Amino acid sequence: MNLLKKTIALPRGFRGAGIHAGIKKDGEKDMALIVSDTDAAVAGVFTTNPVHAAPVKVCRRHLPGGRARAIVVNSGIANACTGRGGLADARAMAAAVARRLKCPVESVFVSSTGIIGKRLPMSIVRAGIDTLLARLSPAGGRAVSEAILTTDTRPKRCLVRLRIDGRPVLVAGMAKGAGMIEPNMATMLSYLLTDAAVQPAALQRGLQQAVDASFNRISVDGDRSTNDSVLLLANGAAGTRPLKPGHPDWPKFLAALRAATEYLAREIVYDGEGATRFVTVQVRGARSDTDADRAARAVANSLLVKTSWAGTYPNWGRILDAVGYSGARVVEDRLSLHYNDVPAVRRGIAAPTPIRRLQKITAGREFNVAIDLHLGRGQATVYTCNCTEEYVRINV
Amino acid sequence: MNLLKKTIALPRGFRGAGIHAGIKKDGEKDMALIVSDTDAAVAGVFTTNPVHAAPVKVCRRHLPGGRARAIVVNSGIANACTGRGGLADARAMAAAVARRLKCPVESVFVSSTGIIGKRLPMSIVRAGIDTLLARLSPAGGRAVSEAILTTDTRPKRCLVRLRIDGRPVLVAGMAKGAGMIEPNMATMLSYLLTDAAVQPAALQRGLQQAVDASFNRISVDGDRSTNDSVLLLANGAAGTRPLKPGHPDWPKFLAALRAATEYLAREIVYDGEGATRFVTVQVRGARSDTDADRAARAVANSLLVKTSWAGTYPNWGRILDAVGYSGARVVEDRLSLHYNDVPAVRRGIAAPTPIRRLQKITAGREFNVAIDLHLGRGQATVYTCNCTEEYVRINV
Repeated sequence: MNLLKKTIALPRGFRGAGIHAGIKKDGEKDMALIVSDTDAAVAGVFTTNPVHAAPVKVCRRHLPGGRARAIVVNSGIANACTGRGGLADARAMAAAVARRLKCPVESVFVSSTGIIGKRLPMSIVRAGIDTLLARLSPAGGRAVSEAILTTDTRPKRCLVRLRIDGRPVLVAGMAKGAGMIEPNMATMLSYLLTDAAVQPAALQRGLQQAVDASFNRISVDGDRSTNDSVLLLANGAAGTRPLKPGHPDWPKFLAALRAATEYLAREIVYDGEGATRFVTVQVRGARSDTDADRAARAVANSLLVKTSWAGTYPNWGRILDAVGYSGARVVEDRLSLHYNDVPAVRRGIAAPTPIRRLQKITAGREFNVAIDLHLGRGQATVYTCNCTEEYVRINV
Repeated sequence: MNLLKKTIALPRGFRGAGIHAGIKKDGEKDMALIVSDTDAAVAGVFTTNPVHAAPVKVCRRHLPGGRARAIVVNSGIANACTGRGGLADARAMAAAVARRLKCPVESVFVSSTGIIGKRLPMSIVRAGIDTLLARLSPAGGRAVSEAILTTDTRPKRCLVRLRIDGRPVLVAGMAKGAGMIEPNMATMLSYLLTDAAVQPAALQRGLQQAVDASFNRISVDGDRSTNDSVLLLANGAAGTRPLKPGHPDWPKFLAALRAATEYLAREIVYDGEGATRFVTVQVRGARSDTDADRAARAVANSLLVKTSWAGTYPNWGRILDAVGYSGARVVEDRLSLHYNDVPAVRRGIAAPTPIRRLQKITAGREFNVAIDLHLGRGQATVYTCNCTEEYVRINV
């Protein structure tokens, strides 16, 4: 297995296009289309927010059909909190694509990302779909990965090469997301495309596992979005036997999926709005994994912790404070904390490490905070970033 | 009843002092002492964070004694996460005051606020206590209210005049707190002093009710602190009969307590680190008060909502998003939202109010966000502020 970072190529049987249709006023690309030449098996994971966007509602309805021919996406407007009218718009996007591909509307999936509460300009969207269909190309992956962005500073894409049944197979991944990012999905869209053949139920389980270990472990600002969607299409164009548990190469496929989603999830944190540091928060020794998760998320989402990381001072007091109020069981004089492998706290009080040694670590572009509660075997990891003045400027 | 804002005077039988002892390096006042000439009944409410500071541990142990002669406070260092040594320091602060006042150590209460994880410079603290004792004065309230501050831009103080048993009585209040502010207490210290006589159990219940309706309803950044403490001393120097439920003036006293704590709580939000707007988040129509509380706090603590309030655009989409992920039961197409009394959302979608009209409200120094879930009778209110670049600058 071979993960190529910052690289995109569409697997066999996929074509794509990305254009500026006119939804964004700044001339940036704002619509994308991915088409599989044949029916692909499809898996999807979506936001758990009960307030969710029209395209998410459409995807949820289409997913049980089990087949996908296309994904149509717009950026700039989220089509969330738009009521029945917005739902009709999202359906119309799917229907317009389905009509031209001569496939059932249930085989077309829809995503939107951008501002909440605004209706889509449907004449622009319809014209955009016509243009996208005309521009579809096997080399269109790059344009797609650009057209799905909003406040991102760069596209996030990767390509995994592996062999299934002895044949070369690709898993292509792309994602967008930089704010409203919190575990359990984010304002985040991600599309994974493979020319492997995969049994549909296995595809869904495999995707869910990969998402739990990647996109659900990142946090930029603790805000869970209305539009989060991850879609995985497997069209079998590589001519391999359908993958499922029991197939000798199934673990290899899962590993590829996990590598791609983990890479993309980390890329989202690296590109967190205004972020300049990537921080891995590891909690161990909790009474349960749930407790560890609570503690890790409280730290990763603490505004005071995140702003302290905008400077270079190793302000571990704020971290212990967040662990304290996380809801996890905590006994103060058992707490320990390391930055990378250097002790900062032992038994709830400052370790005798010189502050300059810690400061060297927390001034870095990337570091680990390892917290041990010394109460059990529960553990959890969350990836997060710092909160800088730039974050505020972006979100005003 | 008469609430005088920004005013402080110590009730009869109290003396106070505030000085620069040398804990803070910038020359600002950093130690305070309040003394009651006679034993006062005492009530206290403290942080619920299991990681809490040594002075909070000391106060919790002294509270069952039911009597207070003094409160000694330092700012600059929180004496939190300092282990046994820190606990010994906090005890030594109480003991030094008790020795000089010739009272039991259990009658002396201690507070600290400032950076977590650092030990107090005890020789400076001891010398400070000597100076404070020498400077005690009935006019010392102003100096006390200044010496307890950290990142606050101004002291928070008020004075309530009322009549109990026909005699004039004072309730004096002061508070500090500007960051790490979240409902269920905050990095917040508040002292309430009265010359009324109050039965101890009634005093504690009265304080808890007042705190629940005031300090527990504010949020600056969602971080619950290690040091939150509210202490209420009633020394009876006004010569009134002990207040308790059944006394005809008991409701009047509760109202005075509530007026003082509400005023101080709002002052803390107004002085929120970097804050330029005061926002009241009201949720009604929830299935339960608990659900309403969840929704209101999710909105008040959403980083994206708070940063949107740094600008002037009425970004209600982010508010609905936060209500959605709050954990409260939500049916999207029943949601309504008003800014002040102007509708922004009806049945989950944009109301036909011109955006400029909403913008006029959200550009103001103070406004209300009223969210109706239309599912029941549960309601809750939280007071909060916006998050500006200045917040980040302060906390780096």
